[in-house]
Amino acid sequence: MPEPPATETDIFEVIATQRAMRRLKPDPVPGEHIKKIIWAATRAPNGGNVQPWRFLVITDPERKRALGQIYAEQWAKYRSMDNAASRAVSSEAERRSLERTFAAGDYLAAHFHEAPVIIIPCGFLLAVNTGIASGSSIYPAVQNLMLAARALGLGTALTTLHRQREDDVRELLGIPANAHIAAVIPVGYPMGHFGSGPRLPVEAVTYWDQWGEKRP
Amino acid sequence: MPEPPATETDIFEVIATQRAMRRLKPDPVPGEHIKKIIWAATRAPNGGNVQPWRFLVITDPERKRALGQIYAEQWAKYRSMDNAASRAVSSEAERRSLERTFAAGDYLAAHFHEAPVIIIPCGFLLAVNTGIASGSSIYPAVQNLMLAARALGLGTALTTLHRQREDDVRELLGIPANAHIAAVIPVGYPMGHFGSGPRLPVEAVTYWDQWGEKRP
Repeated sequence: MPEPPATETDIFEVIATQRAMRRLKPDPVPGEHIKKIIWAATRAPNGGNVQPWRFLVITDPERKRALGQIYAEQWAKYRSMDNAASRAVSSEAERRSLERTFAAGDYLAAHFHEAPVIIIPCGFLLAVNTGIASGSSIYPAVQNLMLAARALGLGTALTTLHRQREDDVRELLGIPANAHIAAVIPVGYPMGHFGSGPRLPVEAVTYWDQWGEKRP
Repeated sequence: MPEPPATETDIFEVIATQRAMRRLKPDPVPGEHIKKIIWAATRAPNGGNVQPWRFLVITDPERKRALGQIYAEQWAKYRSMDNAASRAVSSEAERRSLERTFAAGDYLAAHFHEAPVIIIPCGFLLAVNTGIASGSSIYPAVQNLMLAARALGLGTALTTLHRQREDDVRELLGIPANAHIAAVIPVGYPMGHFGSGPRLPVEAVTYWDQWGEKRP
């Protein structure tokens, strides 16, 4: 199979090949690319068009290093609880895929600060949306940002481990209490190639008219 | 300005013109389009690739009518609290935009059941992600679905009002307690044209290295 191209504007190709890219080159990212991916984020649906978001762009080496330190500590904790061997996997291919993911996570933990840019989308909560929907006005924007990045040849990974140390991150970056860290996203040109992660077929996750009801 | 085309594959054009489409024609949507937009959803990032989602596709007229009834009741409540006149708006253009949105919402409330298809993405919660991040593994999928729909010329609107009557919706569709309704999305060919909603400029929502810090 030929490698997917480094840049790509066809939306279905972008969607098909936007996977987490955890190995990034330190090469700088043009300012207009940063602006374009945040522009893409701002076009996303959101409750009542109140645009309850801010995008914090980190390029300062010391702050990147501090964020990397927190990530590495939280990754080590996560890694001790969840790993490819501990998962119930249904096939050898799935086991290998998980092991590759964990190895890429190890790499990211060791090199987090080397990403040229780290973007932290923060969301304000809307009283009307609680529970799983409390993120309904920020993650569509996050996804637009990541798709636009992939289109421009930029790798990203949606990480949430910093949330377990939210107070530390707030203090480091001056984030006020009403702004919630949705993700911490390293952005840069990838060392590897874009491609498709394994997914269940559509039929396995689609029900018709009633929960559990499948159609041939 | 020329109207944006009805179908569009360039990702930046799709992102620029995917706004909520609340006036939909009752014309049927091809089955392969439904499959393709759910396929797009399944490609989204999600925690540990556990794919914690199911997509419930409603085409049955009675169930659509029941969903429409719930929507209309909740919309009436919402409408009595929040409306264009009650909002602090900074310009006449913003006020007109809000009034158009509320009028489109009124239309949707009266015609919800006429959408040929209603898709209800449901998410399973991951213990690792709480607060605003509890939706971090479902709304990227929701956004992929809505972008793919717009690319195919299909209008969608991300509605969350049904969540206030989650028990009624669970009973109607047999949704189990561990599956959380992320959105109820009418899908169909739009009566109007795709286009750009008003948004703040990138500079207004972007901070550099520290909260509140802007760059020229």
